[in-house]
Amino acid sequence: MQTPWDYRYAQRTQRMGSSAIRELLKFTEQPEIISFAGGLPAPDVFPVKEFAEACQRVLQDCGAQALQYGTTEGYQPLREMIARHSSRFGIHASPENILITSGSQQALDLLGKIFINRGDRILVESPTYLGALQAWNAYGAEYVSVPSDEDGMITDALEEALRTGPKFIYILPNFQNPTGVTLSLKRRHQLVTLADRYGVPIIEDDPYGQLRFEGEHLPSVVYLDGEIRANHDNTYRGNVIYLSTFSKILAPGIRLAWVIAPPEVIRKLVQAKQGADLHTATFNQIVAYEVGRGGFLDQHAKYICQVYKERRDVMLEVMEEVMPSGVHWTHPQGGLFLWATLPEDLDTADILKLAIEKKVAFVPGTSFHPNGGGKNTMRLNFSYSRPKEIQEGMVRLASVLTEIIK
Amino acid sequence: MQTPWDYRYAQRTQRMGSSAIRELLKFTEQPEIISFAGGLPAPDVFPVKEFAEACQRVLQDCGAQALQYGTTEGYQPLREMIARHSSRFGIHASPENILITSGSQQALDLLGKIFINRGDRILVESPTYLGALQAWNAYGAEYVSVPSDEDGMITDALEEALRTGPKFIYILPNFQNPTGVTLSLKRRHQLVTLADRYGVPIIEDDPYGQLRFEGEHLPSVVYLDGEIRANHDNTYRGNVIYLSTFSKILAPGIRLAWVIAPPEVIRKLVQAKQGADLHTATFNQIVAYEVGRGGFLDQHAKYICQVYKERRDVMLEVMEEVMPSGVHWTHPQGGLFLWATLPEDLDTADILKLAIEKKVAFVPGTSFHPNGGGKNTMRLNFSYSRPKEIQEGMVRLASVLTEIIK
Repeated sequence: MQTPWDYRYAQRTQRMGSSAIRELLKFTEQPEIISFAGGLPAPDVFPVKEFAEACQRVLQDCGAQALQYGTTEGYQPLREMIARHSSRFGIHASPENILITSGSQQALDLLGKIFINRGDRILVESPTYLGALQAWNAYGAEYVSVPSDEDGMITDALEEALRTGPKFIYILPNFQNPTGVTLSLKRRHQLVTLADRYGVPIIEDDPYGQLRFEGEHLPSVVYLDGEIRANHDNTYRGNVIYLSTFSKILAPGIRLAWVIAPPEVIRKLVQAKQGADLHTATFNQIVAYEVGRGGFLDQHAKYICQVYKERRDVMLEVMEEVMPSGVHWTHPQGGLFLWATLPEDLDTADILKLAIEKKVAFVPGTSFHPNGGGKNTMRLNFSYSRPKEIQEGMVRLASVLTEIIK
Repeated sequence: MQTPWDYRYAQRTQRMGSSAIRELLKFTEQPEIISFAGGLPAPDVFPVKEFAEACQRVLQDCGAQALQYGTTEGYQPLREMIARHSSRFGIHASPENILITSGSQQALDLLGKIFINRGDRILVESPTYLGALQAWNAYGAEYVSVPSDEDGMITDALEEALRTGPKFIYILPNFQNPTGVTLSLKRRHQLVTLADRYGVPIIEDDPYGQLRFEGEHLPSVVYLDGEIRANHDNTYRGNVIYLSTFSKILAPGIRLAWVIAPPEVIRKLVQAKQGADLHTATFNQIVAYEVGRGGFLDQHAKYICQVYKERRDVMLEVMEEVMPSGVHWTHPQGGLFLWATLPEDLDTADILKLAIEKKVAFVPGTSFHPNGGGKNTMRLNFSYSRPKEIQEGMVRLASVLTEIIK
């Protein structure tokens, strides 16, 4: 059917495509497929009982407030809770530094809206989070990419990239999506030093920071940036905008995340958010506050870590056992993903079709590379499937790969 | 505090301002102020009990699904329910025509994102809904405005505006925000005929359509557009994109609305929404479906109409009694707002400061005029305050105006 809308799309829609990940979610809905594709948390760890209790309390005690319009900045007690929560990780922000967003994806979109002019270069790790590329492509971003290895972004290659004059650096330092790797402490220092020298600010995206199964917690980039500045009073300095979310430590289906930024940036984000969705659902914010307060967040994150650690262990063990030689993978200390690299001549997009025939799925690596490359890579999620399914799924995947590589 | 972000804002932020309405919401939070300013539904009519029951059912029966990521298009049973609901008003759409959004504000933002290039002209009524201007300013929209009177947009002035080549027409035909007026049937016919002749499509924004207190329901613009086309089979034709929301018939704090559009437009909107917030909260969608199904929407809308009718009647009666001569106002047959016009030399922005001293608030009319004008106008909300407060608030407002006009 032809409509007068057909000729009216804005220029920017040419750079908007559907995400490979989202399209693949359709396969995960078929129950016979074992999917390592989605970035889904385990439904087993959702605090359903706590949500049910909180919903009752909220609707009984302040139902009218919870169902009414709210302020764009977000529910004040929730912002205060996030400020307290952050301070335990060395980020000393106050509520005026905090904006509640409808998931971290909205934070990325709003940041793109207020900062990116068509043609601006954004410095990213390669591979990097697909959702950021999707959000920023719509604003005409170009990308300067710095490669990464088992210790995260290779900061020795950072200076050259900084000389191209990027608008900001975007980095996921902990259990990165898609690779699962963590930026080493030495490289974190190098990152903040170089960013400071070139006057380029940083967006630190940290959805998985609390999901560390082993090893020591590393100080966040925003914390280290504060350390190198003159005034060592530990308050939030503003060179780094920090993002985190309730999606991985409570539940993604409530779409709740937050930005920590200088008050002036928060004001601009608030203006952008007013135009984008007025505010994030009041009900969800009050319920999340009720669920999360009183130490539940930390306690529940520990439980999730136990569950995910077991799944990661199973995945790594089975891979060790069944994968053909020539396949290599990362060994994440936390998070939801690992990253596999096949021999150079292989294309995981082709392999995916074969894998789906064998009832197993993953995400081909190319989509995470803003400037091409990564054809022989894939992202594997270990949080969603149960240990038995991980085992069976990995056997299926290995049989596909063995067929091809032999 | 200076940060490196200060010099990095995108060009488009120059056209993004904070909404006067949103700033005013801060006053409504002071309990001693009687506010006619916000666009808030009456908290008294929120179906709190129904929400509490639905939350329990949803978390018990499908808690893991409700707290998990969902598809960008929206929860399928909710889209089906909306399709059935719409068909009762003559809009015969199927789920593939429907996208769930995080409030109508997000629908406006996404439509701006996929259609508006910098400098595009959008044809609007003047005054028009502030949220649309806020959303579209960020994409560099310009506005061609057509004045309105007690029968809505003056369609006799439409043809001249259509000759400027607008990208689309934006109209709120029922109990318009801010004026409360309804586009007459004759003008609806004229609108769709002229839009068809000039090949300019229409966005019909209908948040209040079900809140009619008196008079006959008028066919929607999308319905009338279908009628003038060759194929009279009553299926959705696509020249008109139709927006509506649960904010006024259930509750705004859950941020749930929908777009009805041709499948191709829905696909583009889905791509834009993936980048904007991935999807609307799964939990809210399933809960709204549980609350709304089985005829509750229509039944509850009737109840809201009773409550709002009483409040409108009180407001009109008191105004008749206490307003000084020289003040005129609209007589809405439904919705949440009426619109007052003062003598030409007065400025309601100045008067607002005096009003707030007397503990009453409204929204000055200028903000609703994209191309200036309306200094002597104001928007008055009658849905939020209880009858006694409306009476008292109107007496306060009249005393301010009498002081000035005498």
